[in-house]
Amino acid sequence: MGYDVDVVNTVNFSNHTGYGYFGGTKTTAEELSKIFDSMDKTGVLTATRLLTGYIPNAAALDVVHHLARKLKARNPNLIYLLDTVLGDAGKLYVAADVIPVYRKMLPLATIITPNWFEVETLTDIKLTDLASLRGALVKLHTVYQVPNVVISSIPLSRIAPSVPPHLLPLRPINGVARNGVSPPSALPDEQQYLICIVSSLNHVPSEATSPISTVYARCVPLISGYFSGVGDLFSALLLGHFHPASTGSVHNSACTSPLATATAHALSKTHAILSLTHLAASAESLPATDDELDAQESERITRRMKGRELRLVQGQDVFRSKDPVEPMIVWEGFWQE
Amino acid sequence: MGYDVDVVNTVNFSNHTGYGYFGGTKTTAEELSKIFDSMDKTGVLTATRLLTGYIPNAAALDVVHHLARKLKARNPNLIYLLDTVLGDAGKLYVAADVIPVYRKMLPLATIITPNWFEVETLTDIKLTDLASLRGALVKLHTVYQVPNVVISSIPLSRIAPSVPPHLLPLRPINGVARNGVSPPSALPDEQQYLICIVSSLNHVPSEATSPISTVYARCVPLISGYFSGVGDLFSALLLGHFHPASTGSVHNSACTSPLATATAHALSKTHAILSLTHLAASAESLPATDDELDAQESERITRRMKGRELRLVQGQDVFRSKDPVEPMIVWEGFWQE
Repeated sequence: MGYDVDVVNTVNFSNHTGYGYFGGTKTTAEELSKIFDSMDKTGVLTATRLLTGYIPNAAALDVVHHLARKLKARNPNLIYLLDTVLGDAGKLYVAADVIPVYRKMLPLATIITPNWFEVETLTDIKLTDLASLRGALVKLHTVYQVPNVVISSIPLSRIAPSVPPHLLPLRPINGVARNGVSPPSALPDEQQYLICIVSSLNHVPSEATSPISTVYARCVPLISGYFSGVGDLFSALLLGHFHPASTGSVHNSACTSPLATATAHALSKTHAILSLTHLAASAESLPATDDELDAQESERITRRMKGRELRLVQGQDVFRSKDPVEPMIVWEGFWQE
Repeated sequence: MGYDVDVVNTVNFSNHTGYGYFGGTKTTAEELSKIFDSMDKTGVLTATRLLTGYIPNAAALDVVHHLARKLKARNPNLIYLLDTVLGDAGKLYVAADVIPVYRKMLPLATIITPNWFEVETLTDIKLTDLASLRGALVKLHTVYQVPNVVISSIPLSRIAPSVPPHLLPLRPINGVARNGVSPPSALPDEQQYLICIVSSLNHVPSEATSPISTVYARCVPLISGYFSGVGDLFSALLLGHFHPASTGSVHNSACTSPLATATAHALSKTHAILSLTHLAASAESLPATDDELDAQESERITRRMKGRELRLVQGQDVFRSKDPVEPMIVWEGFWQE
């Protein structure tokens, strides 16, 4: 995409952990600190954008917090995408002591990209319906002062009854169809959807009647199976496509916001890479999910994981494409009780 | 270029060492070994090509030697580009104990890319004329059994009198011009040239009259100033563009060899990136070389080094280009006394 990136690795592993076995080292907090301090001393700590992702423990995250504070203090226009990597589907995959550190870091972020479980963990609000979703967004926008929130994926079935029909996919999902007719039973996994919701704080100082934020949404068909690195791909694309409007401009809900535009690109391109990967894996007849058979045949997990490695290099034209993508759709009336 | 690469870092530094200050860690031999062993155990140690570059000490190089042996034993068609990084311009920049390890590794290599100083160090032959150059190539091809040798850069002035006129650049260099007329004095640095010489072992079993190898050469104008990573860029491009002919085929000196084709691409593309970088640095009025002034103004080296960071991302179209490049020229009669 043309960005010149300084990469600092927080782990140096032989392979991603989805393979079930890996070796190598985690970069310690001291090592990270030394690298950032040396970059500073050398005069190359001048990034205008910052992306942080998986950081395995609170001590390392503290160092990253310090870095973000320093960069923001030097450049108030720093664009910081904070990917609050905590876990998924109800399970933490970092140490629990990182949660309070992430909460302290939220006010530094330009954009955060939690999944639904991470929203729940950060806000202490269970996402069960539209009211709880509103509550969580209010908390992130006001208590934690995050201007741009992207809830990257909520299983549509969790909130489908609250979603306006024009935001739903054409095909029916879990009993809820765009035409209001319920099918007799739940549909198979392949036809399930995720919904991505983005919310940008409205910069309108004292108009009590204005909603706190403008919300957009888009449903994406779920591609079944586990793929490693999808969140990293999505957040990198989102930051790459984010071009903020001039400060203080009012979001006009009739046109698309910088956040919605960036998210539309990130969703479409991530989906394109996943589809490419899925197709390539299918061509090699690699099974979709078969945990039981893995236990019987130890090479099976390696074959499957290798088949599922995101086809980033093979799909490089996806990243370079300037083609228009399916837009996010504004969720009119999101804030109306 | 479409290759899916597993990168294993041998150092994790804040910046390259040309800045004069850096922080971070070297990957220890134990850590490297653990990463390769874990890749093997996971089942992802299946590379068909291997590129190794700067490795700071003999213990780490031993681990890389072990890796290369293992990959070669599994796959005799492994294409291994061994960049024997030892030093430049008469000065070692690795520990001297890596030299014997590199010598042991040479028979595993498909291609090596020493500069003239590294050829001298590996062969113990001083490159002063055509005879010593022949001697060094014979030693690398026979004693060390390297099929493809690319001497990436020899200052043309060192061997210019031995170079046939049709291989010389159009402009005169250091007293030797294509038309045989000597200019009155040496020309300034900007007009100096490097010569790149490639030599592929001829696979002709028992024809005593055949020369041991086919040699190609090309002169490249020297871009003055220090750029970090040029050797890494060149060797990566060379490996990427190397497409070996079917085993046992005889090189026909009338057409180009796989090695000469790959080298032509690597030279042209490296030169294009250097030119782009030089132009960008000039546009920012960054000084070319000014060691004395650096001492007076500590930020000066940072400014210059940042200006000299290779414009790899900005020049990505260079790498994707399918345009024809200036070919290497066969050095007819290289082996004729």
